[in-house]
Order: sequence, then C-alpha cells, then structure tokens
Amino acid sequence: MPPTANAGTMPSPTHLVRPLRIGMIGAGTVGGGVYEIVMNRLGGGSSSSTTTRTTPTPIITKICVRDASKPRNFHVDPARTKIVTDISSVINDPEIDLVVEVAGGVTFAKDAVYASIRGGKSVVTANKALIAENMDELIALLGEANANNRGGVRFGYEASVCGGIPVIHALQSCYAGDVINEVMGICNGTTNYMLGKMETGAEYDDVLREAQDLGFAEADPSADVEGYDVRAKIAILAKLAFGVAVPVDSIPCMGITNVSVVDFAYAKSMGCTIKLVGTAVRKSRFGEYDGALSVYVSPKLVPDDHLLASATGCGNAVAINSANLGLASYAGPGAGRYPTANSIVSDVMRVANGTCHAVPFPLSRSSVDEIDNDYDSAFYIRISFQDGLGIVRTIGELAESQGVSIHSILQQPITDRMAADTVVTTESCKLSQVKALCELIGREEFALSTPVFMPMIPEY
Amino acid sequence: MPPTANAGTMPSPTHLVRPLRIGMIGAGTVGGGVYEIVMNRLGGGSSSSTTTRTTPTPIITKICVRDASKPRNFHVDPARTKIVTDISSVINDPEIDLVVEVAGGVTFAKDAVYASIRGGKSVVTANKALIAENMDELIALLGEANANNRGGVRFGYEASVCGGIPVIHALQSCYAGDVINEVMGICNGTTNYMLGKMETGAEYDDVLREAQDLGFAEADPSADVEGYDVRAKIAILAKLAFGVAVPVDSIPCMGITNVSVVDFAYAKSMGCTIKLVGTAVRKSRFGEYDGALSVYVSPKLVPDDHLLASATGCGNAVAINSANLGLASYAGPGAGRYPTANSIVSDVMRVANGTCHAVPFPLSRSSVDEIDNDYDSAFYIRISFQDGLGIVRTIGELAESQGVSIHSILQQPITDRMAADTVVTTESCKLSQVKALCELIGREEFALSTPVFMPMIPEY
Repeated sequence: MPPTANAGTMPSPTHLVRPLRIGMIGAGTVGGGVYEIVMNRLGGGSSSSTTTRTTPTPIITKICVRDASKPRNFHVDPARTKIVTDISSVINDPEIDLVVEVAGGVTFAKDAVYASIRGGKSVVTANKALIAENMDELIALLGEANANNRGGVRFGYEASVCGGIPVIHALQSCYAGDVINEVMGICNGTTNYMLGKMETGAEYDDVLREAQDLGFAEADPSADVEGYDVRAKIAILAKLAFGVAVPVDSIPCMGITNVSVVDFAYAKSMGCTIKLVGTAVRKSRFGEYDGALSVYVSPKLVPDDHLLASATGCGNAVAINSANLGLASYAGPGAGRYPTANSIVSDVMRVANGTCHAVPFPLSRSSVDEIDNDYDSAFYIRISFQDGLGIVRTIGELAESQGVSIHSILQQPITDRMAADTVVTTESCKLSQVKALCELIGREEFALSTPVFMPMIPEY
Repeated sequence: MPPTANAGTMPSPTHLVRPLRIGMIGAGTVGGGVYEIVMNRLGGGSSSSTTTRTTPTPIITKICVRDASKPRNFHVDPARTKIVTDISSVINDPEIDLVVEVAGGVTFAKDAVYASIRGGKSVVTANKALIAENMDELIALLGEANANNRGGVRFGYEASVCGGIPVIHALQSCYAGDVINEVMGICNGTTNYMLGKMETGAEYDDVLREAQDLGFAEADPSADVEGYDVRAKIAILAKLAFGVAVPVDSIPCMGITNVSVVDFAYAKSMGCTIKLVGTAVRKSRFGEYDGALSVYVSPKLVPDDHLLASATGCGNAVAINSANLGLASYAGPGAGRYPTANSIVSDVMRVANGTCHAVPFPLSRSSVDEIDNDYDSAFYIRISFQDGLGIVRTIGELAESQGVSIHSILQQPITDRMAADTVVTTESCKLSQVKALCELIGREEFALSTPVFMPMIPEY
C-alpha cells in the first residue's frame, strides 16, 4: 500500500479545530467503504496520521443500524466507533458535526436528514431519490439552518449521481462564468452493461438474467430498465445546470425494454451505438439555445465518436455542452462500494477543509423561463411489419399528416416477409409528433406492433 | 442569450463584503475572454446582476498592458476599468484583491505574481511554465503570505493544464480519500490535432503546415511537437497527484516528430491509435502500484476503446487511475479563448465564494518515496531496414542481450526490399533497455535509421 492517501491538508475553519466527528446512518456496502477509507486511510481522528497539523481529520464516532447484531462485511473498531440502533442518539448528539446518510429510502432517511440539518449538522448523502423529490424543500431547509447556525451547515451529495464521477462538484464549481446548454448523462451502470452486451448480439432477456446473476440488476429490475433511476439523476443534474426543480414524475421516461438487437444492427450501419441517456437541454433555434428547458430519459442513438460512446461496461459518463467550453465530458465508475464511498469521503473532506459549497444548487430558478418536456430531436423509428404493397407510401402519408419530415429510410433486405422491419429517421420534430406517428403506424394492418422510437444525437 | 450565467450564489466570506476587485495583467486572447465573462456575464461589480444578494461580484478594475495604444479585440469599459502600463499600479493597489495573470512568460510574469502574493493578493494564472518550474517556491511563498495575511491568499491555476478541463480542481478536491496510481494526459491540442490528421493518412510535414496555417501551431513549433508543453503540464499534474515536484528537465520527453503514417497503420492493426501522452505513474509489481514514481512524455499506443482515445481534434483528455475509482477521465477543450477564460473565471469565483483551496497542491512529498523516470512499459518498436538474411535473428539476439523479451513481431508484406519496416512489441521492460536496444539495432548494416519506439497502454 502507498504510504499516504491524498488527505486534504487545508487549514481548518475555526469551527473545526478538533477532529470532524461523523455519525453514519446505515452500514451496507457503501457505508463499509466509507468507514474503511475514513478510519484507515484518513486516520479516523488520529492527529498523527495527517500530512500537516492543520488538517482536521474525520472520525466516525457512531454508526446507526437497524440490527446491531447483524454481521457486517467490514470491521468496526469499538474503541473509536459506537454501533447504535436509536437514530436520536446520532441526530441529537451535540458532539457530532456531520451525518453521513447511506441507509437509502425516502421515509426514515428523509426524517433523519431533515432532523440533522435542522439541528445544525452538515449532511453528506448518496440518496438520489430523497434529493430529486425534495430539492426546493432541502434548499429552504438549509437556508434556514444556516441562518440559525451562522452558516456552518453544509450538504454534500456528490455520490447521488454517477457514483464515482465528480459531476455534481463540477457543476457547482466549474461553470460559474459559463452558460450550460445541455447535460446528457449515462447515469445507470446496469443498463449500460446490458446495452453493451446487446451490442455484441446478446438478446435482452438473456442479458437481464446475466446482470441479475452478477448482482448488477435487482430481482425487480424496473428501476433500472424502465429508466426511473436515470430520471431521478437527470432531475438533480437539471437543477444544478439550469436552476429548475423539474418534478420527477413530469419527466418523459422511456427505458430499454423495447430496445432489441436489431436496433444495434441499424445503429451500427449509421455509425452509432445505443445508450440510455438522461437529457436536460434548452430548446434551440439556429444553434442558439435560448428556448424552454426539456428534461427526458430515453435510449438514444449516440455516434461512435461521441464522448458519451466511450462509457463501456458498467461505466457512466456525463457530457455537458456549454457556451464557453463546447462539449466536455466526465467518465468513470457509476456505482460500487469504493467509487461511491470515494464521492462521500470527498464531500466529507470538503466540509472539513471549508471548500464545500454553502449552497448545494448554485442557480436559482431564473436561468430558465419555461419547462417544456415535449422535446425536439431527430428520431430513429423502427417499424416491424408483415410485407405487402404500399407500406412505404402509407408511412410517408402518416408522417406528413403529423408534420414529421422523413430524413432517411433504411431497410435491410427482407428475409422473412411475415416479420420484417424497416427504419425511418426523421428531421427534428417534437416527441409528441413522433409518438402520434408511431401510434398511427401501429394501427395499420401491416404493423406487427407499435413502432419503437429513439432520439438521435447528431454528429459533431 | 440566456438570461443569466451560472453565477455562484454563495455567501461571501467576511473579507469580501464588497465586490471582488481584480487587476488583470495581459490583455490578449484569453484576457479578452476573461474580461467579457467577468464584466458582461457576471455583472462586473454590479450588485443587481446576481441571483442572490450575498454573491460578491467580480470586477476588473485595472488591466496592465505593455502598450496602452495597441488595438484589442474586446471592448474595455473606461467607466469601470483603467488601462495601465505600470505593473506597480496593480500590485501595489490596496483596493485590488486578486490578480489575474494572463501575460505569459516566466520573467516579468513571475515577478508580478510573486509580488502580488507577497502583498497579500490572491492570484489566478494560466501560466504553466511559471508554475511547473517553481512549484515548491510558490507553495512556500503562499504559506508565508497566508501566515502574514490571516489565510486569505489563494492561488488558482486551473487554466494552466488542459485549458477548459477542470482536472486541477478535481485532483485538489475529489481524491482526498483516494490513492492515485497513474495520471495520463493528452494535454496538447496542437499535436492531438496533427496526430488525428496523420491517422487518416496525412504526412507529418503537411499536417504541421496545415496546423500553422490554421494558427494552431507556432512558426517555431518545437514547444508543441517536441513535447515540452506537455512536459510542464505533466509536472504539475504529478505534483498534484503524488505530492512530488519533479524537476521539469529531468523528465524524459519525446515528441511526435518521429511518428509516421506507417505507425498508424501498425497501430490500427493492433486495435490502437497514437496519442502524445504525459504520464505520471507509480511502478507496479503484480498489480500493486507501490514502487517509485515515473514521469515522462511520449507518443503512446492507445487502445481504441480506452477513455483517452476519445479525445479527437484539438481536444484534451486526462485519465486517472486510482485505488477507489479505477479509471476515470475528464475530456474537453484544451485551449482557446473561452475555454481557458472559463477556467480562470471559475478560479476567480472560487476565491470570491470561499471554496478555493487554501493549499494549491494538497499532497506533501511523503506520498512517494522515490522518483525513477526510467519507466517500465511494454513498447512498440518500428525498425526500418533494407531486406536481407538473418534480420529477425539479429533483432532477437540484440533484444536478448538487453534483457528485452519480445512479445510479438508484426510485418506487413514487404513491397520494397530496399526500404521495408517491421514492428516488434516487447513485454514490459525499462525505457533504458529499449533505448539501448534501438541504438544497437540502428548500428546494424540492415538498419536504415535508429528504430522508433513508443510505450503502449495495455488493454483494460
């Protein structure tokens, strides 16, 4: 092992002359990682372990669990850390400066987080659902707590989106003089793993079973494959990038359950792959991003040389398009014990050394005038049909009736006249237009099902 | 234009109750971008322009230039900003809180930066050469200045490496609980552009001329093509990641002048591309990165699916391999007016809102025991020769004599027996071994020149 970790060596703010005392709620996979890093690598409160004497070292003094007798996959040092089962002994402990919440859920965890903030404690959490559903409330709560506590209450949530990728911190800290036009995130490792396998020819059902066997996917995989996990995350990123708390259940959300191996074949013929992407984008006209904000989740056709295409396996990536930078991207592990724990520990150390942002979402509502989730895009439409006369004419007529302009028609040679498919790509149109078109096509006699559609990321 | 920028809305630290007053040294391309962003988008000191009343707005009150009459490509508002030619009127102005240095060079700029710090002013600079050559001195100077000024002196240098990519801030802030094993950076847009063109078949000389015509490359391109620019940048990243100030001129540095179109053909046959990479890596044995630190600059064979391969055109990318995260990457624009200005403004706003790190390099020397730039790697060796008998045997004997184990031999069918080439890849060996081997091969009668060698990034 290398001799020291990258412990921050910042002078401590005056309110933290002693070690930073942490109460941790939850002791699962991520909690174990946090405990190991804080207590072993960062010294766990020992003053001799740090590189300069001015560093406040973090120490986890209490861990609150449901069942104290349950075996854990990490060693808790009883001389330094007390295991408790009563949450009030953490949130009411005046010695605890900061609460790390890694229990998950939106009921018990929410109460604990709110009570901690109200009590003047800083909070670091990985709980995306809790944040996505309560952004404005959390901001108000933190504002009050800071007014009552002379500004010392911080809220870190780097681990809530894209596990180990510091995208939240980047959005808080690296765009102060910029204007963001678009945020696109591959924020779910499970579905990215599945889509990667499907790209090499594996069928959806087989890949899902494999992901479940590997422990990547839950027995009920709907949070991942239906896109709900990404939806919560893109809501958080949209708030950071545009200052708007878009209600989670208003966000159009399409998962990967309709994506098929044949879609990858068509995508490949267009120089693309398929990724599940959460998008928050301002509507643009003539290259100016000056319209309403659209937030949505959908599988997307991504050009092979796009920065987002480089997220392989369980990896995550976020691409941000802004006025000053053009396209920038952040890629790395999206989940897992140590990546997620690393983001939590980074937040803890930012609280310790005084560089944690006082306001968790730097933008106020004013950066966007309007939300319109009926987003604009070029679309890919795959139509499964029973071969017959007049199909292309009918599709053309239906597209015209919905005001959808067809950009290209791709059709592999038909080998089975009873179950063929063709792909139509459109010029930019609205989600509602392409949806209506697909429903109309699906009602035609030749259609075997309602067509599958996906937005397409344009070439650079 | 969107109504507001992502202005930070943090409560101001107590020493910044009024606007943050900035003196800027230099008014070239980047300086103009900084001025426009600060004065137009962030309000330039106007209290009504920000989203909350607690935000200290930055204002550039003075710009120091060599020639005040020289036309500039941005408009300076004389009501808010004074153009001066005497540096002392900036560094000795007690009203100025922060100095932005965008003049470049290591003589005048160094004096101005040092005097500003000594005078208790924070400094933000894009000057990689100044930093790379004076890291330990700068740290000492800042320590003294903070001791004398109650901790208020900050030093921001995000723009010095990889223009618009926030890699310095990420290394300062996102690895506090982690241990970094390797940093690899594509940090020079000019050479990345040139290599990208060569990948599609263009010859080096033509590409260099094109880059010069486009203004990407200087009339004397040596800082770019010989790797000196990358060398200064990897020295800075190595200090951040490992705590060691490696003397710049001790870093082995090979540029792209020997890379030829034929190398791209061989690379492609191995599923790779070629990038100019600055590397700082701990020596590893059996997968444990526990040895000496090696820092070097060289063109490298990069697997097509590696995160670094996604930096195309003038783009930059940095990949960081760490204990907690595995591989993470940051990609974006490496240069240019607004990307570089954005990094400077981000630093300025971090000083304004109190989140700029007090210590510019968080690690002390202790994280690495030893520096050994005779690095280990698998190597690619291209041998140009006149065909004859016994060549493969001779190469094999010479490799054995240097303790270099050959991994593979690739040879395209020989079309010109007087000027053929073959590629040998090695198992992991030392730079000194492969250098000695290439010199020995170059002395053989069949050799047309000393072979070209490059380290190879292994597959994931």
